[in-house]
Order: sequence, then C-alpha cells, then structure tokens
Amino acid sequence: MHEVDRRRQALETALAAGAGGVLANHGPDVRWLTGFTGSSGAVAIAAPPAGRGKRSAPKAVLFTDGRYTEQAKAEAPGIKIVIERKPPATLAAAWLAEQGVTKAAYDSTQTTVAQLEGMKLVVPGALRRSFFAAQPGLVAKLREVKDSGEIVRMQKAATLGCKLFDFVLSRIESGVPEREISLALEVEARRSGAEGMSFETIVASGPRSSRPHHRAGAEKLPKRGFVTLDFGVILDGYCSDMTRTVHLGKASSREWDVYHSVLEAQQAAVRAVRPGVTCGEVDEAAREVLRRAKLAKAFSHSTGHGVGLEIHEGPRIATGQKQELQPGMVITIEPGAYLAGEFGVRIEDMVLVTESGHEVLTEASPTAWIEL
Amino acid sequence: MHEVDRRRQALETALAAGAGGVLANHGPDVRWLTGFTGSSGAVAIAAPPAGRGKRSAPKAVLFTDGRYTEQAKAEAPGIKIVIERKPPATLAAAWLAEQGVTKAAYDSTQTTVAQLEGMKLVVPGALRRSFFAAQPGLVAKLREVKDSGEIVRMQKAATLGCKLFDFVLSRIESGVPEREISLALEVEARRSGAEGMSFETIVASGPRSSRPHHRAGAEKLPKRGFVTLDFGVILDGYCSDMTRTVHLGKASSREWDVYHSVLEAQQAAVRAVRPGVTCGEVDEAAREVLRRAKLAKAFSHSTGHGVGLEIHEGPRIATGQKQELQPGMVITIEPGAYLAGEFGVRIEDMVLVTESGHEVLTEASPTAWIEL
Repeated sequence: MHEVDRRRQALETALAAGAGGVLANHGPDVRWLTGFTGSSGAVAIAAPPAGRGKRSAPKAVLFTDGRYTEQAKAEAPGIKIVIERKPPATLAAAWLAEQGVTKAAYDSTQTTVAQLEGMKLVVPGALRRSFFAAQPGLVAKLREVKDSGEIVRMQKAATLGCKLFDFVLSRIESGVPEREISLALEVEARRSGAEGMSFETIVASGPRSSRPHHRAGAEKLPKRGFVTLDFGVILDGYCSDMTRTVHLGKASSREWDVYHSVLEAQQAAVRAVRPGVTCGEVDEAAREVLRRAKLAKAFSHSTGHGVGLEIHEGPRIATGQKQELQPGMVITIEPGAYLAGEFGVRIEDMVLVTESGHEVLTEASPTAWIEL
Repeated sequence: MHEVDRRRQALETALAAGAGGVLANHGPDVRWLTGFTGSSGAVAIAAPPAGRGKRSAPKAVLFTDGRYTEQAKAEAPGIKIVIERKPPATLAAAWLAEQGVTKAAYDSTQTTVAQLEGMKLVVPGALRRSFFAAQPGLVAKLREVKDSGEIVRMQKAATLGCKLFDFVLSRIESGVPEREISLALEVEARRSGAEGMSFETIVASGPRSSRPHHRAGAEKLPKRGFVTLDFGVILDGYCSDMTRTVHLGKASSREWDVYHSVLEAQQAAVRAVRPGVTCGEVDEAAREVLRRAKLAKAFSHSTGHGVGLEIHEGPRIATGQKQELQPGMVITIEPGAYLAGEFGVRIEDMVLVTESGHEVLTEASPTAWIEL
C-alpha cells in the first residue's frame, strides 16, 4: 500500500467520524503515513478539492524543522513538505483551518495537553471549541493490519531474531554473566544490520527466570536451571520479538513438565490464530491448557500483542478482548509460567494472520526442549 | 538531596501556584522524586496533615502495576507504594481527591489529552472543572539543578564518555565505515557498564560532517577530511553528551581556520558560564566569535542544553534566553560551523555551573586540534 492510500484511509476514518481532516503527530504514525523517520514531525490531511472525485489523492502536508530539510525530501517524496521552527502539530492545525476544515480528528493518546493548547491557539476563535475531535488510536488502529511490504520487512526482522538466537546459543553456559549474553546478542544484531534492539534484552536465568520482567544482570548463569531469552531487533524500522527458554544441566521432571505445559499452551494459541477469531479466544486457548496443568495462576500476564513499527501495538491478545483478528495482523503469542523462588518458562513466537489461518514468522528457531 | 526533600520542593512549587497537591507521571520525574525506574508509574504528593508543621514530610504515594511490585519496593523504600492495574495517573488523581486536595498541579507537557480525561473521571463532579492545574515542566524545572549525588553520577558518565573517545580514536582511519566506529564505541560503552547510549551515535565524516544530524552510515571515512563524533552514554541513569571533531590527513588552511574559530567560540561560551549569567549571554559569547569569523550563518543551531536523567533538559542555551544559570546546572556547550557540501566542525563539552563559575566535566578529553 502506497503512503497516499494510507493517508486516504486515515482521512476516511476521520470522515466516518464526522471530521473533515486528520492531524497525526506521533512518530511511528508520521512514518507510516509519509515515510519520514525524523524525530519531530506532523502530518495534516484534508479532503481533496471538490469536483476532483472521491478517489483522488487527499491534500496532505508534512511539517518538520530545518534539521530535517534534506531527510524529509529524501524519505517522503510524495508529499508537500513545510519546514518551520514552530511545533509541527501547531503548524498542522493552522494549515487544516486554512483549508476550510472545521473539525479535525487527532489522537488524544499521542497528544499532550500542552500541544493541544498550542494547536487551539492557531484556529479561528469561533471554531476553537469544536475544532479538535479526539480519536484515540486513529492511525494506530490502521497500522495493526500490515501491507505486503511491511510483512516482508517483519519477516526479515523475525528471521534475524532467529539467527541471533542460534548465534547466542553457543555462549549459554554455566558461569557466564547474564549481561555477557545480552551484550553478545546485541553486538551481533548491530553487525547484522539492525538499527537497534526493540526493547531491553531479557536474559533471566535460574530463579530469576521466575521474574517476567527481569532484564540481564551481573548474575551468572547457574549450573542447573532455565535460561529465558526475550529480545527483539529493529530492522528497517520494524520490530521483532521472540522468547526462547532453554535448560542448563539435567532438568527435574517438574521443570520438564512445566516447560511442556507452556509449550502446549503456546502451540494451542498459535493454532487458534485465524481471521474472525477474537483476541480473547486466542488468549483463552493458551490459558485453558495452563489451567488444566494447574498453572493458571503462574501465567500472570496476557498472551500477546501486536507488533510492527512499535514493539507494543494493537491488538491486545488478552482475556475477554472482543477484537477480531484480520489478515495482515502480526501478533506475538507468548504464554509463560512463573513459580516464584523456583523457576519460570516463557515461549514466544511472532505470528502473521493470513487469509486462511496463520504463518509463524519465527519458525526458523524451533521451540522444542533444549538441554545444554 | 533526599527524595523526600525533592517531593517537598515539588509540593512547595505547587502550593506557590495555588494548588494543594502534585501529580507527576513522566518517567524521569517519577524516578527523580522516588528512585523508581519502572516504565509505568505516577507519584501523588499532598500537604502533610495539619498540625505536623510545615517542614514535616509531605504525604506521597507511588502508583505502579503488578510487574513492578518487587522492584518498586527495592528502588523506592521511602514512599508508600500502591500496586493496581489502572493507569497510574488515574490512581494518583483519585488519591489526591481522597486526601481533600481540591486543586492539583500536573505537567501538561507530559500528560496526554486521553490521560487527563481519565484523571478527570475519578475526581468528584463538583471539582472536576477546576481540579487540574496545568504547570508545564513542574518537576523538570526542579531537575535542572543537580544535587551532589547527581553531580557525582554525571561526572562519572562524562568521564566514561572521555574514555570511550580515547578508545575509539585508534580506530579512526581512512576506509573504515562510519558505522564500524559507532558500533565499536557502543560495544565498549556496554562493556564499561553503560546501560545504553543516551542518543543515536553520530559519526559524520568528510562532506557528511556538514550535516549536524547525520547519524553513522555505511559510508567509509575519507582519506582526507573531518570526522565528527557526537555521542553519550547512560550510566546509573544519567546521560553524558560530548562531541569531538578530528581531521584525517593533511588539513587545508580553511579547515584549520574553521576548526579554531569553532574552538574559540566554544571556549568563549564555556568561560561565560557562571551563576547569574543568562543562557542567552552564554549563547551570544559563542555566536559573537563565529560572527567575527564570518561563520554566523554556518552556526545553524543553538549553543547547548541541560542534561541529566534525560539527554535534553532545561535550560536552553539559545539566542535571547533570559533564564539565569544557577549552581548545580549541567549544560552542554556545543557550537559548530557547517559549510554545506564542504565540511563541518562541532566541539561539545559538558559543563557544570558552580558557585564560583564552572567545571568542565569532559575535560579528560582535550579539544585541541587532532590530525590523524
């Protein structure tokens, strides 16, 4: 999908909600709508002039500042660019008012109170009270469904993640500090072309594997016990996210059982992924397996989340979520079981919703039991 | 300064503005007020119960969610912690209303429109319209002045930056891709204990040195020309920021002259740093030197900015800024000259404002001409 179509889609969302224009100022939204990756920018979109026909391109402008003159031209060739020193969202608001727009949709979850105040000041006084229509997640909702170009990039990011896991597997041995593992992984990620990591790498070993948000510390990998690696790269703007848990030394039957319960739960949830199924149903598929294994309470978080230009996007794969999966969505499936003071296990894949079901983007890295 | 004193300071700011409580929900503000480093949290502060005396500790609560139960207890021992699933800012608003507060100051530059809506819903209807008082930069303004513990941490971060420059200097040679330099620097930073980089490392060589925001690309360092390195680490939460420009091969007299004009400008601005001087006067000290050297237009950005828990904090060292420097502020002084299509030079130090003048925190790394 070309950026012009994305802008048209955003405009249509606004029109359907009774607004005549769109103002987007969240970085990933601006990038998705224009291609521009600079740290400061806003996009304004208004209906095309009357008489041009409904399918003609909407009028749109990208606002940024002088630091990004060259970069904006190179990255966003298909849109008018205005370079000014003022806050981009304020410039976008003024432009929309000049175009005759009387109500503009904006994302109230991505706009600060102070930004909105600045935006209001440049709108004619008579319109000010009713000009800005809060539409939470306006562009983020559209971004949930990936187009073919995005799917290719996400597959590449996921594949790089799998390669990195292979690379780092040989370093996992008793006595190595957790932080050495994350560092080795991150260095190899950068050498492999990643722009960075999509979140702080988790290496949680031994009893620390029972803390879902443990990062990677100075603590050393134990002689015996689980090691959970949860990490992601940013490649060409898109985030990967995967988790593997391996065992150092000989496992107890309890450890083996919990691992396989989590794996069964994870596979059940992956199998449930197809268009029309609700996110709550996918979550329940994992939860039901862990309930049967008497691990319901040990699974203390939701099953997954959307991923794309940001590491955490919609939809939320959580209890009771009524949202239905659609082809093109990319979600994580990452159930876990955490036994405080003992150990924990989490297994996570990235899964693409396809027309007929799903594809696991991280399948190059098997989830079968690994004992080192 | 203990966190309790910081909370008292924040409360006093609010009281002076006619509010009876403070609501802070920006990560670095929460960290500064409590010590808590989790990704989701809010702090509410209310005046101590009547009769306890003005200098007794204000009542305060840290709100976060179940992921951070252990971490919050460990990092923020001196404050009541409430763990709940709702948005922390909403919980903080409800608590303030329960304490009898009728007007609470919050930072409108760090609160989204949607967050404020959620906060309003939990305040009694009769108070709702007047309960929240926007105070832009409420805690950020206090954070501009560092206490002794922060100064020590910033000195350590700055010193690590200097060591990294020494380390990477030996790698700077013709034919090496810019990205290899940034990668080597970042790996060594992590090995040296840095949590990460405070911004994307800039390695801008040859004609690319004329672009102030060039990052580090696949392009190779030239046989002849400038190489600008601008980078910072995060160490124990605090950011460093420094820039050095070195020359590969024999320089032209024009290159030598421009370098020394920028260096003279940088030193003039550093010399101007002392309590009571306005930020605009410091900026002008650099600008005046470059004006005399006919490089006024080539200096296309402001002279510097505050730095601390965030890479960009107040005060702004820019044209016309009336804010006066105070002891304890840490600012960057980073003039540059950029000649499009030719070359560019930037030199940056971190400077602490002291009672009697200033200290250069990055002085372990000399700014004298380096030809490799």
